[in-house]
Amino acid sequence: MLRLHDHITSGNGYKVRLLLTLLGLPFARVEYDVDRGATRTPDFLRLNPNGRVPVLDVEDGRCLAESNAILCYLAEGTRFLPSDRFERALVLQWLFFEQYSHEPNIATLRYWITHRLMDDGRREQVEGKRRWGEAALAVMEGHLGSRRYFVGERYSIADIALYAYTHVAEEGGFDLTPYAAIRRWLDRVASEPGHIPITQS
Amino acid sequence: MLRLHDHITSGNGYKVRLLLTLLGLPFARVEYDVDRGATRTPDFLRLNPNGRVPVLDVEDGRCLAESNAILCYLAEGTRFLPSDRFERALVLQWLFFEQYSHEPNIATLRYWITHRLMDDGRREQVEGKRRWGEAALAVMEGHLGSRRYFVGERYSIADIALYAYTHVAEEGGFDLTPYAAIRRWLDRVASEPGHIPITQS
Repeated sequence: MLRLHDHITSGNGYKVRLLLTLLGLPFARVEYDVDRGATRTPDFLRLNPNGRVPVLDVEDGRCLAESNAILCYLAEGTRFLPSDRFERALVLQWLFFEQYSHEPNIATLRYWITHRLMDDGRREQVEGKRRWGEAALAVMEGHLGSRRYFVGERYSIADIALYAYTHVAEEGGFDLTPYAAIRRWLDRVASEPGHIPITQS
Repeated sequence: MLRLHDHITSGNGYKVRLLLTLLGLPFARVEYDVDRGATRTPDFLRLNPNGRVPVLDVEDGRCLAESNAILCYLAEGTRFLPSDRFERALVLQWLFFEQYSHEPNIATLRYWITHRLMDDGRREQVEGKRRWGEAALAVMEGHLGSRRYFVGERYSIADIALYAYTHVAEEGGFDLTPYAAIRRWLDRVASEPGHIPITQS
């Protein structure tokens, strides 16, 4: 059985849980207390030397790290990844956008705030992360102004990846009120058959 | 013809130039002065609303952003992307590692130093970026200790993506002397037939 090494409030973990559930794939979940270094132990570093959840144990200890790589692996050959070569590349474009321009700003501020990790060093970074997070939201808003989903007008792993931390952006102090197209898209994703909330394992 | 919107010292642009050259695909290159806001003009933002090079115009204005998504698009069906499903996912794992854990630290320090952009706000971030950059190099060193290439013992786009900013890490103040396995791998990649240096367009 697929085995997901995970932390329940992680949006990166949620991406994988959501897709596994939409695909109807059974999986076991192993929970790690990230605040207490549970992903930096020798045992965990054998699963992922980069020390981060989620990690998917595909079978017999063959492990895959990086949430968006896991999404691609699971979505291969399903309706969540287009078969057209250019559309597949556009899905990847948004997955890399998510990890480079969105997650390090929006998810990181949420993490620092909700896990009560704000200290002086981090406080100095808040303004920059706020500005770049808003810039990422503006890019999404512009794109969604004339579209229902990110690629090919169909629900794909690009939407799943971007939904994960956008729908909880307010926990990181981002106000989504000005982003009408994003809010409509969030409702659309949440209305997809089989949708589960972030805290459901 | 393929049209690459690019900046010549960009490692992200270099990834694409290198793969295009290895594949023997002719392309036109359009150079942008990133220091003077050339990627934030209305014309450029129509190519990539996220305002970054590289962008590959595949044909007739169909544009693809995010260097690693472009690599995947070009490598599809070639020897630079494995056909095995799990190995493909491992390639993606390293591409996401590169954009999340490596590039924002190693490439960003190089950019600030070589483009003379260091100011007080950035200076405060140097220590953190140095620490996380070293952590990324340590993960690579551990992986390469028992391997010739990142995935499946063959040269792939995972190597191309990680080579781009690792081979110029010293320009960002990183000393590669302690990383013997990385240095052997850098030599191996540079010895691949058809290899070009970062400044060759």
